[in-house]
Amino acid sequence: MRPMTRRAMTGALLATALAGSTSMPAHSAPAAPASLYAPSALVMTTGHGEKAATTTPERAVTVNCAYTTSGTHPDPRQACADLDRVNGDLDRLATLRGNDAGQPCTREYNPIVVTVQGVWRGTRINYEHTFANPCIKETQGAAAFAF
Amino acid sequence: MRPMTRRAMTGALLATALAGSTSMPAHSAPAAPASLYAPSALVMTTGHGEKAATTTPERAVTVNCAYTTSGTHPDPRQACADLDRVNGDLDRLATLRGNDAGQPCTREYNPIVVTVQGVWRGTRINYEHTFANPCIKETQGAAAFAF
Repeated sequence: MRPMTRRAMTGALLATALAGSTSMPAHSAPAAPASLYAPSALVMTTGHGEKAATTTPERAVTVNCAYTTSGTHPDPRQACADLDRVNGDLDRLATLRGNDAGQPCTREYNPIVVTVQGVWRGTRINYEHTFANPCIKETQGAAAFAF
Repeated sequence: MRPMTRRAMTGALLATALAGSTSMPAHSAPAAPASLYAPSALVMTTGHGEKAATTTPERAVTVNCAYTTSGTHPDPRQACADLDRVNGDLDRLATLRGNDAGQPCTREYNPIVVTVQGVWRGTRINYEHTFANPCIKETQGAAAFAF
């Protein structure tokens, strides 16, 4: 998302939040202060196998995308940028780099499965994708998967 | 887990890791260094409703449990301690505090659903529990759910 779009969106959210607070009935229970940002908190895993359900997760990292990014992902900023870029359409992550470096991969079948679970901008997500081998994951998959 | 237990377990894992590395065939592909700890990375959410699938997650936080704990959970140390205490049997989280303070709750039906997803000690978990109202969550559910 480009900075202008984000600013515009924040403005809209702020307006909504202010409108919401003035129209709140006086008898409502006190709620904890809500963030202006819908939550984005994710767990990403990788494991060698065909399906997440039958594959031991060898690595599992967290990513938080909000005003500041954080997590145990080695580059949470890149992970959030990739998710921004596909705008929640996670299927696009599998080919996000599209092998722009032109690195050749063998056709060896050594499947590696990647999962992304949790919440992205207030929407639950539960995604998995299997790459035929690690080389294809590294060259064609999103940089977000490099962990 | 008490410190002694954890030390003993680390020793066992270390022994296994060392045994594994000496018996590794010479032709195997170079792997990234594996951690001695199986990964524990989680996303926890809360939302007002009966089922996670139909409920907007109002809050979503990450928790990492390893040698050091981290995450956007307000008290990741407590969250990891609770998970340790139930030893992965997440169903026990719903009654972990068992209302030891004896605080009364109304029988009002205002369901709130809690989810825990991700990886706990190398095993995938996907848990949800619905409390009849927030008071019951606060008084009987695990302290891990206070976020």
